[in-house]
Amino acid sequence: MHKKGLLGQLIQSFCCLPGVGPKTAQRMVFQLLQRDRNSAKALAETLLQAIKEIGYCQQCRTLTEYSLCEICADKSRDDSTICIVESPADAWIVDQATAFKGHYFVLHGRLSPLDGIGPDELGLNILEQRLASGNIKELILATNSTVEGEATAYFIGELAAKHHVQASRIAHGVPMGGELEFTDSSTLLHAFNGRRNLDTNVA
Amino acid sequence: MHKKGLLGQLIQSFCCLPGVGPKTAQRMVFQLLQRDRNSAKALAETLLQAIKEIGYCQQCRTLTEYSLCEICADKSRDDSTICIVESPADAWIVDQATAFKGHYFVLHGRLSPLDGIGPDELGLNILEQRLASGNIKELILATNSTVEGEATAYFIGELAAKHHVQASRIAHGVPMGGELEFTDSSTLLHAFNGRRNLDTNVA
Ligand SMILES: [Zn+2]
Ligand SMILES: [Zn+2]
Repeated sequence: MHKKGLLGQLIQSFCCLPGVGPKTAQRMVFQLLQRDRNSAKALAETLLQAIKEIGYCQQCRTLTEYSLCEICADKSRDDSTICIVESPADAWIVDQATAFKGHYFVLHGRLSPLDGIGPDELGLNILEQRLASGNIKELILATNSTVEGEATAYFIGELAAKHHVQASRIAHGVPMGGELEFTDSSTLLHAFNGRRNLDTNVA
Repeated sequence: MHKKGLLGQLIQSFCCLPGVGPKTAQRMVFQLLQRDRNSAKALAETLLQAIKEIGYCQQCRTLTEYSLCEICADKSRDDSTICIVESPADAWIVDQATAFKGHYFVLHGRLSPLDGIGPDELGLNILEQRLASGNIKELILATNSTVEGEATAYFIGELAAKHHVQASRIAHGVPMGGELEFTDSSTLLHAFNGRRNLDTNVA
Protein backbone atom coordinates (compact mmCIF):
# COMPACT_ATOMS: atom_id res chain seq x y z
CA MET A 1 0.00 0.00 0.00
CA HIS A 2 1.41 3.38 -1.05
CA LYS A 3 4.80 1.74 -1.01
CA LYS A 4 6.11 3.87 -3.84
CA GLY A 5 4.39 7.05 -2.68
CA LEU A 6 5.55 9.95 -0.56
CA LEU A 7 4.22 8.23 2.55
CA GLY A 8 6.40 5.19 1.86
CA GLN A 9 9.44 7.42 1.27
CA LEU A 10 8.78 9.24 4.53
CA ILE A 11 8.49 6.00 6.51
CA GLN A 12 11.74 4.89 4.88
CA SER A 13 13.42 8.14 5.98
CA PHE A 14 12.40 7.63 9.59
CA CYS A 15 14.05 4.21 9.54
CA CYS A 16 17.45 5.97 9.56
CA LEU A 17 16.84 6.97 13.21
CA PRO A 18 18.64 4.77 15.76
CA GLY A 19 16.38 2.06 17.17
CA VAL A 20 13.58 2.79 14.69
CA GLY A 21 12.39 -0.10 12.52
CA PRO A 22 9.64 -0.03 9.87
CA LYS A 23 6.78 -0.51 12.38
CA THR A 24 7.91 2.32 14.63
CA ALA A 25 8.63 4.57 11.64
CA GLN A 26 5.10 3.88 10.40
CA ARG A 27 3.60 4.85 13.76
CA MET A 28 5.68 8.05 13.87
CA VAL A 29 4.74 9.13 10.36
CA PHE A 30 1.02 8.52 10.78
CA GLN A 31 0.95 10.35 14.10
CA LEU A 32 2.83 13.34 12.66
CA LEU A 33 0.62 13.63 9.58
CA GLN A 34 -2.68 12.77 11.27
CA ARG A 35 -2.51 14.57 14.56
CA ASP A 36 0.48 16.77 14.77
CA ARG A 37 1.39 18.62 11.58
CA ASN A 38 2.55 21.72 13.48
CA SER A 39 5.02 19.73 15.55
CA ALA A 40 6.08 17.88 12.41
CA LYS A 41 6.78 21.16 10.65
CA ALA A 42 8.75 22.49 13.64
CA LEU A 43 10.76 19.26 13.75
CA ALA A 44 11.63 19.38 10.04
CA GLU A 45 12.54 23.07 10.08
CA THR A 46 14.63 22.86 13.26
CA LEU A 47 16.45 19.86 11.81
CA LEU A 48 17.25 21.70 8.55
CA GLN A 49 18.45 24.73 10.50
CA ALA A 50 20.62 22.54 12.74
CA ILE A 51 22.18 20.74 9.76
CA LYS A 52 23.03 24.12 8.27
CA GLU A 53 24.21 25.96 11.36
CA ILE A 54 25.63 23.45 13.82
CA GLY A 55 29.37 22.92 13.56
CA TYR A 56 32.10 22.37 16.12
CA CYS A 57 33.30 24.50 19.05
CA GLN A 58 36.76 25.91 18.28
CA GLN A 59 37.95 25.18 21.77
CA CYS A 60 36.37 21.89 22.86
CA ARG A 61 35.15 20.47 19.52
CA THR A 62 31.61 19.72 20.72
CA LEU A 63 28.57 20.36 18.50
CA THR A 64 27.37 23.97 18.61
CA GLU A 65 25.95 26.66 16.36
CA TYR A 66 28.42 29.18 17.84
CA SER A 67 32.18 29.46 17.39
CA LEU A 68 32.51 28.86 21.15
CA CYS A 69 29.94 26.50 22.71
CA GLU A 70 27.83 27.63 25.66
CA ILE A 71 30.07 25.79 28.13
CA CYS A 72 33.33 27.21 26.81
CA ALA A 73 31.73 30.67 26.72
CA ASP A 74 30.39 30.37 30.28
CA LYS A 75 32.70 32.47 32.49
CA SER A 76 31.22 30.93 35.64
CA ARG A 77 32.63 27.50 34.76
CA ASP A 78 36.07 26.31 35.88
CA ASP A 79 38.35 26.31 32.84
CA SER A 80 41.21 24.64 34.72
CA THR A 81 39.54 21.22 34.73
CA ILE A 82 38.82 19.45 31.46
CA CYS A 83 36.79 16.29 31.06
CA ILE A 84 37.88 14.32 27.98
CA VAL A 85 35.11 12.42 26.19
CA GLU A 86 34.83 10.52 22.93
CA SER A 87 31.71 12.24 21.57
CA PRO A 88 29.50 15.33 21.97
CA ALA A 89 26.75 12.99 23.22
CA ASP A 90 29.08 11.81 26.00
CA ALA A 91 29.79 15.41 27.03
CA TRP A 92 26.05 16.10 27.14
CA ILE A 93 25.36 12.97 29.19
CA VAL A 94 28.16 13.67 31.73
CA ASP A 95 26.93 17.25 32.09
CA GLN A 96 23.39 16.09 32.79
CA ALA A 97 24.36 13.30 35.19
CA THR A 98 26.99 15.06 37.27
CA ALA A 99 27.52 18.38 39.00
CA PHE A 100 30.72 18.90 36.99
CA LYS A 101 31.23 22.59 36.27
CA GLY A 102 34.49 22.44 34.34
CA HIS A 103 35.13 22.28 30.61
CA TYR A 104 35.02 19.41 28.14
CA PHE A 105 37.17 18.27 25.28
CA VAL A 106 35.63 16.08 22.60
CA LEU A 107 37.88 13.61 20.75
CA HIS A 108 35.34 12.54 18.10
CA GLY A 109 36.66 9.00 18.32
CA ARG A 110 39.47 7.07 19.94
CA LEU A 111 43.01 6.21 18.94
CA SER A 112 42.92 3.50 16.30
CA PRO A 113 46.19 3.40 14.35
CA LEU A 114 44.94 0.68 12.01
CA ASP A 115 42.09 2.97 10.91
CA GLY A 116 44.47 5.90 10.52
CA ILE A 117 43.12 7.64 13.64
CA GLY A 118 46.09 9.13 15.46
CA PRO A 119 46.51 11.97 17.98
CA ASP A 120 45.96 14.73 15.39
CA GLU A 121 42.64 13.26 14.21
CA LEU A 122 41.44 13.43 17.82
CA GLY A 123 42.50 17.07 18.12
CA LEU A 124 45.18 16.25 20.67
CA ASN A 125 47.41 18.97 19.20
CA ILE A 126 44.71 21.48 20.25
CA LEU A 127 44.48 19.86 23.69
CA GLU A 128 48.26 19.95 24.07
CA GLN A 129 48.29 23.71 23.46
CA ARG A 130 45.90 24.09 26.37
CA LEU A 131 48.04 21.83 28.54
CA ALA A 132 51.12 23.85 27.60
CA SER A 133 49.40 27.11 28.56
CA GLY A 134 49.89 26.27 32.24
CA ASN A 135 46.25 27.05 33.09
CA ILE A 136 45.06 23.45 33.35
CA LYS A 137 45.05 21.71 36.75
CA GLU A 138 43.32 18.42 36.00
CA LEU A 139 42.22 16.25 33.10
CA ILE A 140 39.37 13.82 33.81
CA LEU A 141 39.61 10.95 31.34
CA ALA A 142 36.06 9.80 30.56
CA THR A 143 36.70 7.79 27.40
CA ASN A 144 34.83 4.50 27.15
CA SER A 145 36.20 1.43 28.86
CA THR A 146 36.86 -0.41 25.63
CA VAL A 147 40.38 -1.49 24.69
CA GLU A 148 40.75 1.55 22.41
CA GLY A 149 39.14 3.89 24.93
CA GLU A 150 41.57 2.71 27.61
CA ALA A 151 44.55 3.10 25.26
CA THR A 152 43.37 6.61 24.40
CA ALA A 153 43.01 7.49 28.09
CA TYR A 154 46.51 6.13 28.75
CA PHE A 155 47.98 8.14 25.86
CA ILE A 156 46.34 11.39 27.05
CA GLY A 157 47.46 10.61 30.60
CA GLU A 158 51.06 10.53 29.34
CA LEU A 159 50.50 13.82 27.55
CA ALA A 160 49.21 15.37 30.78
CA ALA A 161 52.21 14.04 32.74
CA LYS A 162 54.56 15.58 30.19
CA HIS A 163 53.00 18.96 30.96
CA HIS A 164 52.85 18.29 34.72
CA VAL A 165 49.04 18.23 34.70
CA GLN A 166 47.23 15.77 36.92
CA ALA A 167 45.07 13.23 35.11
CA SER A 168 42.32 11.03 36.60
CA ARG A 169 40.28 8.20 35.15
CA ILE A 170 36.55 7.82 35.90
CA ALA A 171 35.76 4.72 37.96
CA HIS A 172 34.57 1.51 36.35
CA GLY A 173 32.79 -1.28 38.16
CA VAL A 174 29.44 -2.80 38.91
CA PRO A 175 26.68 -0.32 37.87
CA MET A 176 24.67 1.24 40.69
CA GLY A 177 21.71 -1.01 41.39
CA GLY A 178 23.43 -3.71 39.36
CA GLU A 179 23.58 -7.24 40.75
CA LEU A 180 26.80 -9.26 40.78
CA GLU A 181 24.97 -12.19 39.24
CA PHE A 182 24.26 -10.17 36.11
CA THR A 183 27.61 -8.39 35.86
CA ASP A 184 30.04 -9.63 33.23
CA SER A 185 33.25 -11.14 34.55
CA SER A 186 35.65 -8.47 33.23
CA THR A 187 33.63 -5.72 34.93
CA LEU A 188 33.53 -7.79 38.09
CA LEU A 189 37.29 -8.36 38.00
CA HIS A 190 37.83 -4.63 37.50
CA ALA A 191 35.43 -3.79 40.35
CA PHE A 192 37.15 -6.30 42.65
CA ASN A 193 40.66 -5.07 41.94
CA GLY A 194 39.54 -1.46 42.20
CA ARG A 195 37.97 -1.96 45.64
CA ARG A 196 38.35 0.90 48.11
CA ASN A 197 38.36 1.01 51.90
CA LEU A 198 35.07 2.03 53.47
CA ASP A 199 35.37 5.46 55.06
CA THR A 200 34.19 4.00 58.39
CA ASN A 201 37.16 1.62 58.35
CA VAL A 202 39.66 4.44 58.09
CA ALA A 203 40.35 4.88 61.79
CA MET B 1 24.76 21.94 28.56
CA HIS B 2 23.55 23.72 25.38
CA LYS B 3 20.10 23.56 26.89
CA LYS B 4 19.02 26.84 25.38
CA GLY B 5 20.81 26.28 22.08
CA LEU B 6 19.67 24.89 18.76
CA LEU B 7 20.72 21.42 19.87
CA GLY B 8 18.39 21.62 22.86
CA GLN B 9 15.54 22.84 20.67
CA LEU B 10 16.12 19.99 18.24
CA ILE B 11 16.11 17.39 21.02
CA GLN B 12 12.88 18.96 22.28
CA SER B 13 11.33 18.66 18.80
CA PHE B 14 12.14 14.96 18.59
CA CYS B 15 10.28 14.42 21.88
CA CYS B 16 7.00 14.96 19.97
CA LEU B 17 7.47 11.58 18.28
CA PRO B 18 5.41 8.74 19.79
CA GLY B 19 7.43 6.69 22.29
CA VAL B 20 10.40 9.07 22.22
CA GLY B 21 11.54 10.52 25.56
CA PRO B 22 14.41 12.95 26.16
CA LYS B 23 17.10 10.23 26.26
CA THR B 24 16.03 8.67 22.97
CA ALA B 25 15.61 12.10 21.35
CA GLN B 26 19.16 12.92 22.45
CA ARG B 27 20.52 9.74 20.89
CA MET B 28 18.63 10.43 17.64
CA VAL B 29 19.82 14.01 17.35
CA PHE B 30 23.47 13.24 18.04
CA GLN B 31 23.47 10.37 15.57
CA LEU B 32 21.84 12.49 12.85
CA LEU B 33 24.24 15.41 13.31
CA GLN B 34 27.38 13.38 13.95
CA ARG B 35 27.14 10.53 11.53
CA ASP B 36 24.28 10.96 9.19
CA ARG B 37 23.68 14.52 7.97
CA ASN B 38 22.61 13.36 4.51
CA SER B 39 19.91 11.11 5.91
CA ALA B 40 18.91 13.87 8.31
CA LYS B 41 18.51 16.30 5.42
CA ALA B 42 16.47 13.78 3.41
CA LEU B 43 14.27 13.15 6.45
CA ALA B 44 13.60 16.85 7.05
CA GLU B 45 12.93 17.61 3.39
CA THR B 46 10.68 14.60 2.83
CA LEU B 47 8.74 15.52 5.96
CA LEU B 48 8.22 19.12 4.79
CA GLN B 49 7.14 17.91 1.37
CA ALA B 50 4.72 15.40 2.93
CA ILE B 51 3.18 18.06 5.21
CA LYS B 52 2.62 20.24 2.17
CA GLU B 53 1.43 17.66 -0.33
CA ILE B 54 -0.26 14.83 1.54
CA GLY B 55 -4.01 15.17 1.88
CA TYR B 56 -6.88 12.69 1.71
CA CYS B 57 -8.04 10.33 -1.04
CA GLN B 58 -11.35 11.55 -2.48
CA GLN B 59 -12.71 8.04 -2.54
CA CYS B 60 -11.40 6.23 0.55
CA ARG B 61 -10.17 9.14 2.70
CA THR B 62 -6.74 7.63 3.39
CA LEU B 63 -3.58 9.78 3.40
CA THR B 64 -2.15 10.33 -0.07
CA GLU B 65 -0.47 13.01 -2.14
CA TYR B 66 -2.81 12.19 -5.06
CA SER B 67 -6.52 12.89 -5.49
CA LEU B 68 -7.03 9.11 -5.69
CA CYS B 69 -4.69 6.97 -3.54
CA GLU B 70 -2.62 4.22 -5.12
CA ILE B 71 -5.05 1.54 -3.97
CA CYS B 72 -8.16 3.29 -5.30
CA ALA B 73 -6.32 3.99 -8.55
CA ASP B 74 -5.13 0.38 -8.90
CA LYS B 75 -7.37 -1.24 -11.55
CA SER B 76 -6.13 -4.72 -10.60
CA ARG B 77 -7.75 -4.46 -7.16
CA ASP B 78 -11.28 -5.62 -6.44
CA ASP B 79 -13.46 -2.54 -5.95
CA SER B 80 -16.49 -4.58 -4.90
CA THR B 81 -15.08 -5.36 -1.44
CA ILE B 82 -14.35 -2.55 0.99
CA CYS B 83 -12.53 -2.90 4.30
CA ILE B 84 -13.65 -0.22 6.78
CA VAL B 85 -10.95 1.00 9.18
CA GLU B 86 -10.68 3.78 11.72
CA SER B 87 -7.39 5.29 10.51
CA PRO B 88 -5.00 5.42 7.56
CA ALA B 89 -2.48 3.57 9.74
CA ASP B 90 -4.97 0.73 10.19
CA ALA B 91 -5.47 0.49 6.41
CA TRP B 92 -1.71 0.34 5.94
CA ILE B 93 -1.31 -2.35 8.62
CA VAL B 94 -4.14 -4.54 7.25
CA ASP B 95 -2.70 -4.23 3.75
CA GLN B 96 0.73 -5.33 4.96
CA ALA B 97 -0.53 -8.20 7.13
CA THR B 98 -3.11 -9.73 4.82
CA ALA B 99 -3.47 -10.73 1.19
CA PHE B 100 -6.55 -8.50 0.90
CA LYS B 101 -6.76 -7.02 -2.59
CA GLY B 102 -9.93 -4.98 -2.24
CA HIS B 103 -10.44 -1.34 -1.37
CA TYR B 104 -10.45 0.50 1.97
CA PHE B 105 -12.55 3.19 3.52
CA VAL B 106 -11.07 5.28 6.31
CA LEU B 107 -13.41 6.70 8.96
CA HIS B 108 -10.85 8.93 10.72
CA GLY B 109 -12.42 8.07 14.05
CA ARG B 110 -15.44 6.24 15.42
CA LEU B 111 -19.00 7.24 16.26
CA SER B 112 -18.99 9.28 19.43
CA PRO B 113 -22.19 11.32 19.73
CA LEU B 114 -21.04 13.02 22.96
CA ASP B 115 -18.00 14.40 21.10
CA GLY B 116 -20.16 15.49 18.18
CA ILE B 117 -18.82 12.73 15.92
CA GLY B 118 -21.72 11.40 13.92
CA PRO B 119 -22.04 9.53 10.58
CA ASP B 120 -21.19 12.59 8.46
CA GLU B 121 -17.94 13.26 10.35
CA LEU B 122 -16.88 9.71 9.52
CA GLY B 123 -17.68 10.21 5.83
CA LEU B 124 -20.50 7.67 5.94
CA ASN B 125 -22.47 9.79 3.44
CA ILE B 126 -19.66 9.12 0.94
CA LEU B 127 -19.66 5.42 1.83
CA GLU B 128 -23.43 5.27 1.43
CA GLN B 129 -23.17 6.63 -2.12
CA ARG B 130 -20.87 3.72 -2.93
CA LEU B 131 -23.25 1.25 -1.30
CA ALA B 132 -26.14 2.74 -3.29
CA SER B 133 -24.22 2.39 -6.56
CA GLY B 134 -24.91 -1.36 -6.52
CA ASN B 135 -21.27 -2.23 -7.24
CA ILE B 136 -20.35 -3.30 -3.69
CA LYS B 137 -20.59 -6.97 -2.68
CA GLU B 138 -19.07 -6.96 0.80
CA LEU B 139 -18.04 -4.63 3.59
CA ILE B 140 -15.39 -5.95 5.97
CA LEU B 141 -15.72 -4.10 9.27
CA ALA B 142 -12.24 -3.75 10.77
CA THR B 143 -12.90 -1.05 13.36
CA ASN B 144 -11.25 -1.56 16.74
CA SER B 145 -12.91 -3.79 19.30
CA THR B 146 -13.57 -0.94 21.72
CA VAL B 147 -17.12 -0.06 22.75
CA GLU B 148 -17.18 2.79 20.23
CA GLY B 149 -15.51 0.72 17.52
CA GLU B 150 -18.13 -2.02 17.99
CA ALA B 151 -20.98 0.51 17.90
CA THR B 152 -19.52 2.00 14.72
CA ALA B 153 -19.24 -1.45 13.11
CA TYR B 154 -22.86 -2.19 14.09
CA PHE B 155 -24.07 1.11 12.63
CA ILE B 156 -22.25 0.53 9.33
CA GLY B 157 -23.57 -3.05 9.27
CA GLU B 158 -27.11 -1.64 9.39
CA LEU B 159 -26.24 0.75 6.57
CA ALA B 160 -24.97 -2.17 4.48
CA ALA B 161 -28.13 -4.20 5.19
CA LYS B 162 -30.26 -1.28 4.07
CA HIS B 163 -28.48 -1.42 0.70
CA HIS B 164 -28.53 -5.25 0.59
CA VAL B 165 -24.74 -5.44 0.88
CA GLN B 166 -23.19 -8.21 2.95
CA ALA B 167 -21.15 -7.04 5.94
CA SER B 168 -18.62 -9.09 7.95
CA ARG B 169 -16.73 -8.35 11.13
CA ILE B 170 -13.08 -9.35 11.59
CA ALA B 171 -12.58 -12.02 14.26
CA HIS B 172 -11.53 -11.15 17.78
CA GLY B 173 -10.00 -13.58 20.25
CA VAL B 174 -6.79 -14.77 21.80
CA PRO B 175 -3.84 -13.41 19.75
CA MET B 176 -1.84 -15.97 17.76
CA GLY B 177 0.95 -17.22 20.00
CA GLY B 178 -0.88 -15.71 22.96
CA GLU B 179 -1.30 -17.75 26.13
CA LEU B 180 -4.63 -18.02 27.92
CA GLU B 181 -2.95 -17.17 31.19
CA PHE B 182 -2.00 -13.75 29.87
CA THR B 183 -5.22 -12.99 27.98
CA ASP B 184 -7.64 -10.54 29.58
CA SER B 185 -10.98 -11.98 30.61
CA SER B 186 -13.15 -10.06 28.12
CA THR B 187 -11.01 -11.25 25.21
CA LEU B 188 -11.17 -14.77 26.60
CA LEU B 189 -14.96 -14.62 26.98
CA HIS B 190 -15.22 -13.35 23.39
CA ALA B 191 -12.89 -16.09 22.12
CA PHE B 192 -14.85 -18.74 24.01
CA ASN B 193 -18.25 -17.65 22.74
CA GLY B 194 -16.90 -17.25 19.23
CA ARG B 195 -15.47 -20.80 19.11
CA ARG B 196 -15.73 -22.64 15.80
CA ASN B 197 -15.85 -26.32 14.94
CA LEU B 198 -12.56 -27.81 13.83
CA ASP B 199 -12.66 -28.67 10.13
CA THR B 200 -11.65 -32.25 10.96
CA ASN B 201 -14.73 -32.59 13.16
CA VAL B 202 -17.06 -31.69 10.35
CA ALA B 203 -17.77 -35.20 9.15
ZN1 LIG C 1 33.32 24.36 23.66
ZN1 LIG D 1 -8.22 5.81 -1.84
